[in-house]
Amino acid sequence: TGTFDFNNDSHRRYNPLTDSWVLVSPHRTQRPWQGQQEKTSAGGLPEYDASCYLCPGNVRATGPVNPKYESTFVFVNDYAAVKVDQPPYEQSGSDDDDLKSRLLQAQGTRGTCFVICFSPKHNVTLPLMSVPEIGNVLDTWTALYNKMKTETTFRYLQIFENKGAVMGCSNPHPHCQAWCTENLPSEPAKEFTSLRSYRAKHGTCLLCDYATVEQQDPIRIVVQNESFIALVPFWAVWPFETLVLAKSHTASLVDFSPKQKTDLADLIQKLTIRYDNLFQTSFPYSMGLHQAPINPVEDETQLSHFHMHFYPPLLRGATVRKFLVGFEMLGEPQRDLTAEQAADRIRAVEEVHYLLK
Amino acid sequence: TGTFDFNNDSHRRYNPLTDSWVLVSPHRTQRPWQGQQEKTSAGGLPEYDASCYLCPGNVRATGPVNPKYESTFVFVNDYAAVKVDQPPYEQSGSDDDDLKSRLLQAQGTRGTCFVICFSPKHNVTLPLMSVPEIGNVLDTWTALYNKMKTETTFRYLQIFENKGAVMGCSNPHPHCQAWCTENLPSEPAKEFTSLRSYRAKHGTCLLCDYATVEQQDPIRIVVQNESFIALVPFWAVWPFETLVLAKSHTASLVDFSPKQKTDLADLIQKLTIRYDNLFQTSFPYSMGLHQAPINPVEDETQLSHFHMHFYPPLLRGATVRKFLVGFEMLGEPQRDLTAEQAADRIRAVEEVHYLLK
Ligand SMILES: O=P(O)(O)O[C@H]1O[C@H](CO)[C@@H](O)[C@H](O)[C@H]1O
Ligand SMILES: O=P(O)(O)O[C@H]1O[C@H](CO)[C@@H](O)[C@H](O)[C@H]1O
Repeated sequence: TGTFDFNNDSHRRYNPLTDSWVLVSPHRTQRPWQGQQEKTSAGGLPEYDASCYLCPGNVRATGPVNPKYESTFVFVNDYAAVKVDQPPYEQSGSDDDDLKSRLLQAQGTRGTCFVICFSPKHNVTLPLMSVPEIGNVLDTWTALYNKMKTETTFRYLQIFENKGAVMGCSNPHPHCQAWCTENLPSEPAKEFTSLRSYRAKHGTCLLCDYATVEQQDPIRIVVQNESFIALVPFWAVWPFETLVLAKSHTASLVDFSPKQKTDLADLIQKLTIRYDNLFQTSFPYSMGLHQAPINPVEDETQLSHFHMHFYPPLLRGATVRKFLVGFEMLGEPQRDLTAEQAADRIRAVEEVHYLLK
Repeated sequence: TGTFDFNNDSHRRYNPLTDSWVLVSPHRTQRPWQGQQEKTSAGGLPEYDASCYLCPGNVRATGPVNPKYESTFVFVNDYAAVKVDQPPYEQSGSDDDDLKSRLLQAQGTRGTCFVICFSPKHNVTLPLMSVPEIGNVLDTWTALYNKMKTETTFRYLQIFENKGAVMGCSNPHPHCQAWCTENLPSEPAKEFTSLRSYRAKHGTCLLCDYATVEQQDPIRIVVQNESFIALVPFWAVWPFETLVLAKSHTASLVDFSPKQKTDLADLIQKLTIRYDNLFQTSFPYSMGLHQAPINPVEDETQLSHFHMHFYPPLLRGATVRKFLVGFEMLGEPQRDLTAEQAADRIRAVEEVHYLLK
């Protein structure tokens, strides 16, 4: 039956960062879709919306009034998933005790959840902001990271953005969140485990080596500048998933030079413009930063290599998403187009935002 | 600040079956929702739909005509994610080779994808079928498992159902899928790793022990009969997630007695009726079976303990779902109501389907 064809034959690819697999079915892109259609974002939003709880000067649901902020604005989430004020809890039982303490294990989790508005303007998004404006967002993240590092004993600050109604975002005002917790969450924990065992085995950083491999044959790279690369990882799960990698081994936001920070703002702008241009829509995604814990233990700072993940759900056009459901939940994640095909598509669109032409 | 309160304070719970954690924020259930609303299923469907590609006697998109089947009906998916007819592929490079073969690892995956119609009737679902009719579905699954076991060298048969448009299901005709692959998929693989290390450490089966613990204090059990339990696991991620456990250590469908099979049909009916009654809607979910591989290696058959997972997305009412997005994708899964509160809610509804009263 000939030789194996990565563009036509099903295969699994390995993700060395989280030690997991994805099933790739490139011959399946022909599949017709008769299922759920997503709504596209309304568009034509006003610069100020009197009913938005994030616009400057407005009153929030729980009472506080937003300042008349002019750049970014940070506040504690009114419905936070974790809180500072609760008793500590560490389970007393051990694994060798009775069945109950062995099988019903829990830990207390204190922390703080922040909301970070990117701009006073209700109707912009990262791809519609200037590089200096995105730079302000990076400075705000950096200041919050420093503040939490200095003032708390919490372990990790997870900065993330849910963009678009399809990604559970309930307000189009440009904003992200940052959840600070006393435990290291599972995803960065898995990554540190992989980075540690790779370094023990090969003496180098997994993500430095990966950046090298991808630059040798740039078929998965979609945008780059002097300091950063954005690429569709070999092991991508979401159709147009990307990984933003620092080219040099840098642990966290606070370690970047001014030049690196400007380059990161530039790269985020270029990548998100291409995303919007792909289906001429405000491209939904969840994205987030992975970096050194604010209160690291052991070798975590040395291991850490700053990166960002973008997980966008759209598959074919503005209204048809990929569902990671049945087989993906019970078996393993599955995708149709290959990472290389996705990278081709993102590279093929124009550099200028379709709304600004 | 008093003592730790599991009904009010944030905590993480450990899932020993997949070696993972979930963040529980019970104080957060008050959060208002202004985001995406789901459509509820249309209802009032006809018993036969001429445009449905699963109804008896109809022509499918790729040409074949469905037989006039009267009970269940199995066929090979017209847009299968894996196929039999492709060359084998096993990467030649090893971990000690150059960066490229170390970091870009892949395996070929041959297999077959089946669609299994539960009934000729377009307008029924499991909770609206009789126990003998559900029994026919179990017999069909069992026969397919046996056939794949006997006729192929594939490793695993993953049987799963996506129900409802919100779960990526594009046709309401009652059906499930079964994907048979030459690799053991990640989720069952993780479970076998956990079952193996638990048995090595304690000499017993993790799931037998877990069934014992839950029966001692049945606060998370929602339905049971002589052979099976359905419970909201201590470590549930989805709001109304349940785990269906065989009470006795049984490896797979083919090992069940007639009595056990009837009991499983009975339990599936009772559980899905309660699900529909919870929000008086056709309750969406992805569900699937975990059991022994069709071609097991090593101790897999001995380790295997038949169970089913139900992952339903709804959180508050028929139109408001839980989104596992930003923090969940980048940090770790998070839930609001506790497993015990969810079990209370499922137990509180009536036993009779709301449409049949
Ligand atoms: O095969 P279907 O029902 O067309 O497709 C659905 O289930 C599959 C298996 O869970 C998923 O891979 C698809 O994303 C989903 O839309
Ligand atoms: O905090 P929000 O934006 O109201 O809520 C959204 O993001 C959270 C963090 O990813 C998720 O836990 C919620 O399910 C989602 O709806």
